[in-house]
Amino acid sequence: MKFAVDAMGGDNAPHEIVKGSVEAVKEYGIGVVFTGDREKIEEELKKYEYPKELIEIIGTTEVIGTDEAPVMAIRKKKDSSLKVAMDLVRDGKCEGVVSAGSTGALLAGGLFVIGRIKGIERPALAPVMPGRKGNFMVIDVGANTDSKPSNLHQFAHMGKVYFESILGYVNPRIGLINIGAEAEKGNELTKETYKLLSEDPELNFAGNVEPRDIPEGEVQVLVADGFVGNTVLKMFEGTFSSMMKVIKDGLKESFQGKIGGLLIKGPLKETLKKYDYKETGGSAFLGLKGTVIKAHGSSDARAFKNALRQAKKQVDSGFIEKFTDEIGKYMLQ
Amino acid sequence: MKFAVDAMGGDNAPHEIVKGSVEAVKEYGIGVVFTGDREKIEEELKKYEYPKELIEIIGTTEVIGTDEAPVMAIRKKKDSSLKVAMDLVRDGKCEGVVSAGSTGALLAGGLFVIGRIKGIERPALAPVMPGRKGNFMVIDVGANTDSKPSNLHQFAHMGKVYFESILGYVNPRIGLINIGAEAEKGNELTKETYKLLSEDPELNFAGNVEPRDIPEGEVQVLVADGFVGNTVLKMFEGTFSSMMKVIKDGLKESFQGKIGGLLIKGPLKETLKKYDYKETGGSAFLGLKGTVIKAHGSSDARAFKNALRQAKKQVDSGFIEKFTDEIGKYMLQ
Repeated sequence: MKFAVDAMGGDNAPHEIVKGSVEAVKEYGIGVVFTGDREKIEEELKKYEYPKELIEIIGTTEVIGTDEAPVMAIRKKKDSSLKVAMDLVRDGKCEGVVSAGSTGALLAGGLFVIGRIKGIERPALAPVMPGRKGNFMVIDVGANTDSKPSNLHQFAHMGKVYFESILGYVNPRIGLINIGAEAEKGNELTKETYKLLSEDPELNFAGNVEPRDIPEGEVQVLVADGFVGNTVLKMFEGTFSSMMKVIKDGLKESFQGKIGGLLIKGPLKETLKKYDYKETGGSAFLGLKGTVIKAHGSSDARAFKNALRQAKKQVDSGFIEKFTDEIGKYMLQ
Repeated sequence: MKFAVDAMGGDNAPHEIVKGSVEAVKEYGIGVVFTGDREKIEEELKKYEYPKELIEIIGTTEVIGTDEAPVMAIRKKKDSSLKVAMDLVRDGKCEGVVSAGSTGALLAGGLFVIGRIKGIERPALAPVMPGRKGNFMVIDVGANTDSKPSNLHQFAHMGKVYFESILGYVNPRIGLINIGAEAEKGNELTKETYKLLSEDPELNFAGNVEPRDIPEGEVQVLVADGFVGNTVLKMFEGTFSSMMKVIKDGLKESFQGKIGGLLIKGPLKETLKKYDYKETGGSAFLGLKGTVIKAHGSSDARAFKNALRQAKKQVDSGFIEKFTDEIGKYMLQ
């Protein structure tokens, strides 16, 4: 199993990307093809011992920045590290691609270079997030805006197959993110989508889920338009990080708080480990003919290694075949 | 200054509603007209000493439940505590209404009984929330879904006048909630709204604000469609409360965590005080010809008293007159 790695993407490229990939190669026995500045990649590789036959480099001359218009960049920068990595998947030379670079360019490349599974209207970006009682996936978190009900219906099936094949759930609960619990609540999109989901016998539909309940993690697959899903994801991250700062600063204001703060430091770190994106891997871009994982832009070696582990898991699970089968069975008839 | 109080609305009606209102009457010198079950209200009132001339009761026979279709309920239940309270504002007998009952019915009543300020397309529900660096308002949090750009443009002006007149800010920063920082990011609604806001010389427009940055509280007025705004509000509350449970449970798992947890309890409570909705009052429903405050459904006496304080502040500030003036000057020409 071989993955294309965009060695130039992310804040810590190429050093942390190369380091994490080498660790993944050694730990998981996967092969890696780096795309990017050959000289720089070779320089990084010199630092490590690794099985030579499992790592290749394809030298490229361009890099797509996070501030570039994504579709244009993918079309014009044909020798960019990301585009060439995508080509490797399209041509069947790699099973998937992992990048910590521009999300927009990754989405554009996934769509236009790798391509959609037949029958899929809109691929979706779908991170798995840590809830209090269990993991949950928000699908979509920004690959699409102004989605249609049929798009969200497909997202529900994507999430279902993901939880079944990759995470080993039986009949995962599917929820529709909405601003009220009742069927008739929400906007035009959610009202129509509610009907589609509730009438689909293949889905274990739990009804509307209000954003307040999402962090509890009682429903596994949470379907939403990308604008709303992205808002959920970013509010989750933003509230968490802002709260931590508030608590930290607040405890510093009294002697008792300071002492207590020192004592809880270790236990708290342990407790909050599951909220560390470096442990959880990246966001899967689902609905494509290849495995595409977006690693966090500020990924270090550990985070990138885990993103590659996630890519391997997705291929191991046969997700794409199973999902293609699901779409063929239930949605193209 | 007199306010209509829906004595039957909320989880703790009428006892906490009556108690909080009596406290508000004594503390702020306002008058209160209770609408609801006369007998029950009188029974509660017996428990307290208060200036008799400042409290009246109008007996009503119906109550609107939180599970009823709002518009229908407001139209049919003409002798409900909420509808009669709204009538008092419409007829100029009270300056405003405060209710802890059904949000939907409050919105419907505001719209159909009290009515919009001339020129206002859509009134909006707008809570002020505690950010790390300062308070911020999300407008709208659910009075409207499928909003138009011109609606959001008016929300920006409502928020501006609110921060200037009620909270004493000079030229508050206005942001558009969006899933990317650049002007061309987002959905059809945000792209169009961005243009309107950035071209309006009366607004101190700070551009797009990503949900991740909202809890920091650096931008005062955050404009959004009600579906997105509600998602922001509920994710803020849900993530906060879920996190607190995670931390509490996590600290219990080790001896050191337990001791530290005991020590930080007091300082933490002090630090997190500003996140207690019981302190902050309710959500203002803006754009109407009267002051309408939605108190939290589970309000106790303290929370309800603070909602009345907020109503008084809004009337004191001349918000409605100032906003009517603003709308007349900049948006009807």
